[in-house]
Amino acid sequence: MVQLSDKAIDRGDTLVEKFVTTRRVEFCETDAAGIVHFASYLCYMEQAEHELLRSIGLSVCEPQEDGWHLSWPRVHVECDFQGSARFEEVLDINVHVSRLGEKSITYEFEFKRGVRDIARGRVVAVCCRVKTDSILQSIPIPAKFIDLLSAYRIQTDCEKSKG
Amino acid sequence: MVQLSDKAIDRGDTLVEKFVTTRRVEFCETDAAGIVHFASYLCYMEQAEHELLRSIGLSVCEPQEDGWHLSWPRVHVECDFQGSARFEEVLDINVHVSRLGEKSITYEFEFKRGVRDIARGRVVAVCCRVKTDSILQSIPIPAKFIDLLSAYRIQTDCEKSKG
Amino acid sequence: MVQLSDKAIDRGDTLVEKFVTTRRVEFCETDAAGIVHFASYLCYMEQAEHELLRSIGLSVCEPQEDGWHLSWPRVHVECDFQGSARFEEVLDINVHVSRLGEKSITYEFEFKRGVRDIARGRVVAVCCRVKTDSILQSIPIPAKFIDLLSAYRIQTDCEKSKG
Amino acid sequence: MVQLSDKAIDRGDTLVEKFVTTRRVEFCETDAAGIVHFASYLCYMEQAEHELLRSIGLSVCEPQEDGWHLSWPRVHVECDFQGSARFEEVLDINVHVSRLGEKSITYEFEFKRGVRDIARGRVVAVCCRVKTDSILQSIPIPAKFIDLLSAYRIQTDCEKSKG
Repeated sequence: MVQLSDKAIDRGDTLVEKFVTTRRVEFCETDAAGIVHFASYLCYMEQAEHELLRSIGLSVCEPQEDGWHLSWPRVHVECDFQGSARFEEVLDINVHVSRLGEKSITYEFEFKRGVRDIARGRVVAVCCRVKTDSILQSIPIPAKFIDLLSAYRIQTDCEKSKG
Repeated sequence: MVQLSDKAIDRGDTLVEKFVTTRRVEFCETDAAGIVHFASYLCYMEQAEHELLRSIGLSVCEPQEDGWHLSWPRVHVECDFQGSARFEEVLDINVHVSRLGEKSITYEFEFKRGVRDIARGRVVAVCCRVKTDSILQSIPIPAKFIDLLSAYRIQTDCEKSKG
Repeated sequence: MVQLSDKAIDRGDTLVEKFVTTRRVEFCETDAAGIVHFASYLCYMEQAEHELLRSIGLSVCEPQEDGWHLSWPRVHVECDFQGSARFEEVLDINVHVSRLGEKSITYEFEFKRGVRDIARGRVVAVCCRVKTDSILQSIPIPAKFIDLLSAYRIQTDCEKSKG
Repeated sequence: MVQLSDKAIDRGDTLVEKFVTTRRVEFCETDAAGIVHFASYLCYMEQAEHELLRSIGLSVCEPQEDGWHLSWPRVHVECDFQGSARFEEVLDINVHVSRLGEKSITYEFEFKRGVRDIARGRVVAVCCRVKTDSILQSIPIPAKFIDLLSAYRIQTDCEKSKG
């Protein structure tokens, strides 16, 4: 259904914006080990992604000109944990874009509690439009998203050497 | 949007079917107090309701003749807790219907772990159809649901005296 | 385990503080009906309760002098729904205390989206201490909680007539 | 806190057991896109892992001889999505172990709906013991776990060529 045949979009070295948000751990997000359940970090990532988009005037549910609306199903998620967090602790979440493909966006997330590293995650979301029959069809990312998200893109050394 | 002006449907004292299911507590359903988070019981109730419906060949998402489908938004939920449950414990869940209104169904749930009472809950769900513009409209419960669910209806003493 | 034999604490008619917070609906809190899943409201209530406590310098996890800490298991929760909410909508949540018992607190919650009523809920939490063997024992609510929460207590007409 | 300096344990090519379980999608696990929310797959994986362990007489909460108990915090999770699943659909989940380290286990999960590939995930859990002060300390995996889980270990081609 979703094909990731995206050509990466080249960009020069320009100033990169940082998006940082915070998240207080809620009780329902903890588990019997006394710490945040690992699946909750995926929700934190999604929420930080949506918050970044809202901060630049975008929404994942953006209605399109043709009456359809966008949807961004995930094709890949991952998370590495270096620490843990407990109820009522506040996490700083750093978000940037590591890849702006033709049809997909790769977001990177860093979770810290003070100076302590807690987790590091990645999400690849594919731009789709939802048709009347609820079927998702992948489409090129609208120019507005590319333009506004470019500021948050950090080119990795690996990509630079490829360039 | 949803109005509960239902006339209760009379029924004589007939044999009442019991629906009992079990649920093992999953780790992600516990919280930092080491027990099942109270909101998880609402999900358990919903799952037991859907399981009861499936057991008699029904689904909350039943497509209707006119191409629309049903939806059962809740207008009331409640739960009393007498005990608590921990990871990997198995709960017995007893479900019955305490009221079959014209447009709403009241389900009652009893949670036990062995002989121990854990919780007791109630859910009132209203029968709605989902129109093309995603608006919910309350409608009379389809005859098929009334017929099949009647067997699970227990008339309370209070209702009997009213009768 | 938890017994609600609390004597209600009398109080005169004094100025009542209002605690209002807001909550933006996250995507993971919605369900396939396109609206906030009903169990999510229970988490919203818990979060608003904890936020109220933090706003007056308290925490549900307050460590006690004897090295033990507090826990507030719920013995009753309920919610009535008048409307529904969708992804990214912002809900106003009004919290007050309708009863300050010797060992339990009853919180009341009103959810609105603008002028629109969305839901109304109630939670009864019992003050317990967690002993070394993880067993909960109900205890009188510490004076600090009573003092600080009294300002958020609204006496209902029913209780007044009893007085 | 958790260090992954595990030496992989060698094993010859022996018969590999397959662990397959099924999971029906619950309504509270769906989101407003009408499909299973991606974070729910992480819970499905955890539940399948625990089910595999129970099937061979083990539990993640296994109490140890010294009075402490085990805990298995995740240091890495990932999931790739090839399809999506909807309410009441039944997923087949295939579980195997791709690595049995000295202190960590890598589980692999395949989700299918009929012949259709839905998702593929991986979890790395580290064996820890929980000390009285709630601090986690990584320890060698108990022999019982190694013995019983070895049957579910599939050696990848990559590892074979290393051997």
